[in-house]
Formats: sequence, structure tokens, C-alpha cells
Amino acid sequence: MPHENSAADLDAAMLIAIGAAESARGFTSPNPAVGAVVLDAGGRIAGVGMTQPPGGPHAEVVALREAGDAARGGTVVVTLEPCNHHGRTGPCSTALIEAGVVAVHYAVADPNPEAAGGAETLAAAGVAVASGLRAQEVERGPLRAWLHRQRTGRPHITWKYAATLDGRSAAADGTSKWITGPDARARVHADRAKLDAIVVGTGTVLADDPRLTARLPDGSLAAHQPLRVVVGRTELPPRARVLDDSAPTLLLRTHDVNDVVAALAEYTDVLLEGGPRLAGAFLAAGRVDRIQAYLAPLVLGAGRPAVSEAGVSTIDGALRFNHESVETIGPDLLLSLIPALPEHPALSSKP
Amino acid sequence: MPHENSAADLDAAMLIAIGAAESARGFTSPNPAVGAVVLDAGGRIAGVGMTQPPGGPHAEVVALREAGDAARGGTVVVTLEPCNHHGRTGPCSTALIEAGVVAVHYAVADPNPEAAGGAETLAAAGVAVASGLRAQEVERGPLRAWLHRQRTGRPHITWKYAATLDGRSAAADGTSKWITGPDARARVHADRAKLDAIVVGTGTVLADDPRLTARLPDGSLAAHQPLRVVVGRTELPPRARVLDDSAPTLLLRTHDVNDVVAALAEYTDVLLEGGPRLAGAFLAAGRVDRIQAYLAPLVLGAGRPAVSEAGVSTIDGALRFNHESVETIGPDLLLSLIPALPEHPALSSKP
Repeated sequence: MPHENSAADLDAAMLIAIGAAESARGFTSPNPAVGAVVLDAGGRIAGVGMTQPPGGPHAEVVALREAGDAARGGTVVVTLEPCNHHGRTGPCSTALIEAGVVAVHYAVADPNPEAAGGAETLAAAGVAVASGLRAQEVERGPLRAWLHRQRTGRPHITWKYAATLDGRSAAADGTSKWITGPDARARVHADRAKLDAIVVGTGTVLADDPRLTARLPDGSLAAHQPLRVVVGRTELPPRARVLDDSAPTLLLRTHDVNDVVAALAEYTDVLLEGGPRLAGAFLAAGRVDRIQAYLAPLVLGAGRPAVSEAGVSTIDGALRFNHESVETIGPDLLLSLIPALPEHPALSSKP
Repeated sequence: MPHENSAADLDAAMLIAIGAAESARGFTSPNPAVGAVVLDAGGRIAGVGMTQPPGGPHAEVVALREAGDAARGGTVVVTLEPCNHHGRTGPCSTALIEAGVVAVHYAVADPNPEAAGGAETLAAAGVAVASGLRAQEVERGPLRAWLHRQRTGRPHITWKYAATLDGRSAAADGTSKWITGPDARARVHADRAKLDAIVVGTGTVLADDPRLTARLPDGSLAAHQPLRVVVGRTELPPRARVLDDSAPTLLLRTHDVNDVVAALAEYTDVLLEGGPRLAGAFLAAGRVDRIQAYLAPLVLGAGRPAVSEAGVSTIDGALRFNHESVETIGPDLLLSLIPALPEHPALSSKP
């Protein structure tokens, strides 16, 4: 009797695939960061793969190559529906069929009409196909920004800020180093290394002179650096660190949020770091897709607020979000929130 | 062979004792809110008791009365070391010995030198005595404020505020109803019914005209109402709701935090509700023993801050706290924090 993979085996394989996908994030744009695991006919892990940089093979093909003949009669567990199109690489659906795989479990369906249809092709070839395993984790995790861009045509924009309990991002004297602890700062740098672009206003450059690079714990530059984007009309000092050659920098001489979003149309995963007025403008324009709030257990009672001028004057007009997760990072909290859908559609048209 | 209570049985009994203590909180001041459970010789629950209002019996005596003869050869599980002194009631240690109890498990030792010694008296009479079970839960829970007052001579002061992600307690137009959702508001009222006093500034009375009463979900007054305390020199309008006859009100015509603390010396569990300047003054004076921050998933970008004028001008001088717990309450978060001990004793003497 052939081996039947248990639900726990498949779940464990999907967790490995998610981890593989996460490790590829930042290196695959504009392609999605996907992870795949090949289980042989006996249910043992025979190969693990992740999307390679553009032009390289997809996750399934990497995992199949590692598995070799062991893929025959086996099962593939993958975070995204295998593609069905001839791009720079052949379709993964064909590769899976040719490898003799008998079952495919994927988490999320491919919303891209060009690439979709992989599940159908596999099923037509007699492969058992199932979907939905750990789908929410994949949608909120390695595929979040890519799925957002597929669905809306816009980059996924995360507004990240660090503030005290009373919502201050700097003290009365302007000092802001360090509000959060070393664990949170390390996390910020690790996250930066997976981004496509990072956006600040000229005010932040003038006030803090940040490098906006992703650095490893030893201070050296990470392998992948996001595009540095500075928004605003104020002239930057030529020696501003953001203009150094450690990463590319784009200067956008505008205050219009839609201009910024349009200029970043080719990018997928974008981080907005502020300052307060730029954050307020993105929030007011409805262009924040996620908030990451690093909340330090401090009280200042004075100083620069995390956000200003968000176009809200009354509680009823407050911009509403839903908590997605709360993490403890050293002494700090990291709150992740996504926009709340209006309870009544009519409310969304309020001025 | 006599019944031997398992660790799980004793733990379950302590959880019931903690629940009983919690239900008495607010009704026992100046006595501690204690809970006790009597297990009979077979390990079955024979009685549960909680501290009665001043002049009434202590928790152990209530539980022993309910158990009657079943206490003989049994075990008592109690949140606080049984008292050893003749106050308005006889010593609990004597009552336990006379009832024939063979073992006592208490969570927390009595720091009050007048009442302490119960464990010694019990052990001298041949009762097996153990301590420490769920001690942290009791210290942070029903005995928190009472233990603080025993150790410091001052009331335990919780600063409670509700704010948006960006630290605003009201919008630009002054509106502040409702920042948090109905679940958080119900929680605030349930907590008020267990307090000894609730403190606001005259500014809050003039801006919001709060009742500061503890109300049940149907809007009616809870059985116990905290003293309402209004701090400041500004004249209140005679029709201010805080001056109605639903609860006693104390007007303190001072801006000095130490005067306020001294005026409340007879009280144990005190809640500071703000506004921002009064909160800042208590924080600057080091007189906030706990922060309860109701954090709503909203962004305002303008409006009244939760706290101002806390005497801090630079990040290095920020008032530091440690997270104690994070709870989800409907769409909101409730963060509980306690003051961080200075890492270097020398720092605590900084101006």
C-alpha cells in the first residue's frame, strides 16, 4: 500500500516551505517569494527549494532538482499555486508532472491570470491537488506584499514607527536615539534587508541624518539593500548619509502621496518610515496598508509626535485599524495593524 | 492511609481562593481582600470564604464556618498568611488550630508586623505549613495595592489612560467619546467598583464633566463607589456631575502631588485618570505605581496628548517602565506596566 501523508506531515512540510519562502524575501522581486518541499513516496523530505533571483528557477524546480528521482510517486508542498506559464522559466506545472509527482498541496491560489491555471493542468494530468493549508500565514507572511500588488496594482506600503507610550517619536530636545531597545533595532534592520524600497521625508533626513541601510549585527551592510526614497522639496545637504553610495537613492521632489506611489509602481514591498507629516499624508490618503508600531515602555510627556496632520479633527473621523498581531521584542512591543474595513459602505465616502 | 492532596488539587484550590479574594476586592479596605478554601480530610472542597467588610470575619473563618466539622483533619489553602493578632476579630491562626486543620498552604507572607507570625503559631501547634503557591498572581492581583501600602505606607496609584496609537486622548476638536470600544469601557467600570478612590484634575471635570462613578452594564450604580477626588484650584461649576450625590467627592485645592498622596493616606487602591498635566505631575514625582494603558487601534494625528509636562526633555531622561501584561479587550489592547528599577542605583538620584 502506498504511503499516505498524514495531516501533521503535510503541515510540517508547509511550515518548512514557509520558512524557505521567508528566507528568499527581498531577493525575488518582481517574482513572489515562494517555498516548496518535496516529500518522497515514503513521506520523507527529499528536497526543499525557494524562488531564485529573477531569471533563476522557481521554488518547485529547485526542490525537484534536489529530490531527483526521489520525487517520483512523491508529494510537493508549496506556498503558492504552481505557475502555468512560460516566462523566463518553463511552467512549474509541467515540471511537476514530468517529475512524476502524484500529489500537490499549495497554500494560496495564484491571482495572476497569466500564471494561474497550474492547479487545473496538474489535475488534468492525474495529480491530486489540494489548497488552503496555512493559507493565512502565507498571505500575511512571505506573499503579503506580492499578493497586494497583484490585486491592487499598487505597492504594499507599511508605515513603521517607534514611539513611547504617549506617542512621542522624539524628546523635547529632538533626541530620538534610542527609543526602542537593541532587539527591536536588530529586527528593523533584518526587515529592511527584505524590502524593495524605504521612504522618508526630507525633514527626517535633516533631523536625524539616517543611513536607511540594512545592516547586520556587526554593522556591515546586508546583502540586499532597499531603494532609499526621500520625499519633499527641501534641499538636502550634499553630505547627507542617505546620499552615500551604500545603496541607491531616489529623490522625489513632491508632497503628493499619489505621485510617490506612482513613482514606486515597479516596487512591491515598501516601508514608510516618516516623519510625522509624511506619515500623516499617507494615512490621510488611505495609502497605508499596514502599520508596524514599535512601542517602547517609556513616557516622555513632550516631544515630536509619531504622526501629525492626518486630516482628522474629531473622534468619529479617526482612522481605524484592526490589530493583526502583538509581539514582545525585548522590552518593547511590536503591534501590527491593518486598515479596518468600513462597517457601513456609506461611511467610506465621508469627506 | 490519610489522603494526600496532589499539587494539582492544591493549585486548583488556590485558584478558587484567588477568585474569592478578587470578588471581595473593594469591600474590605483597610483590610486585605483574602480568599480561603477548606479541603476536607478526603481532599474535597468543604468551604470557600473571602474577607468580609471591616468588623466581619476574615476569609479563613468564613471558610471554616462553611466547612464545619469537615475541616477536622483537612487542609486550608489561603492567599495570605493567616493573621496572628487580636484585632476586631480573633486570630485566624487560633481558629485554624481549633478547627483541627492539619495543613495550611498560603501564597504570600503577611508583611504587617502586628499580624505576622501566623505561620509560626500554626507550625508550633503541629500544623504543616507551606507558602509560595501562586504567590506572583496574588501579589499582582487581589493583594497588589494592600501589599504596596503595607510596604511603603502610601496608597497604590494606578495611572489609567485611553489613547490612540499616536498617544492622543482626544481629537483636535476636543471630542474624546469613545476612543475605546464598549468592552474596554465595561472593564473600566467593573474596575472602578473595586477601587478606594479615583483622582482627576479640574481640567478633566471642566472638559468632559465625568460622573466618575462605577456603573453596571445597565447603567445603574455599582454597590461600591470609590471616593471621587478632584485636584486643582480652578472653581468647578456647581452643576458638575462629579458633585452629585451618587458617591462622595473630595476637592483638593492644590497642585502638589505629595499633598494629594498625603490626603489619600487612608486609602489603599487609588486610580489616577488624568488629564495630561495631572498625569505628568504624578509621573514626574515618581508616584505612579502602575500604568494601565487602553490603546485603541486608531490614528488621529492631532489632539490632546495622554500626558504632558512630565519633567522630561531628552530620551535619556525618559520615564522607564516594564510591561507586566498585554490583554486584548475587544478591538483594543490593555497594557499593564510597572516602573522599571534603575539599572544603576546612581541613576535614581539624577535630578
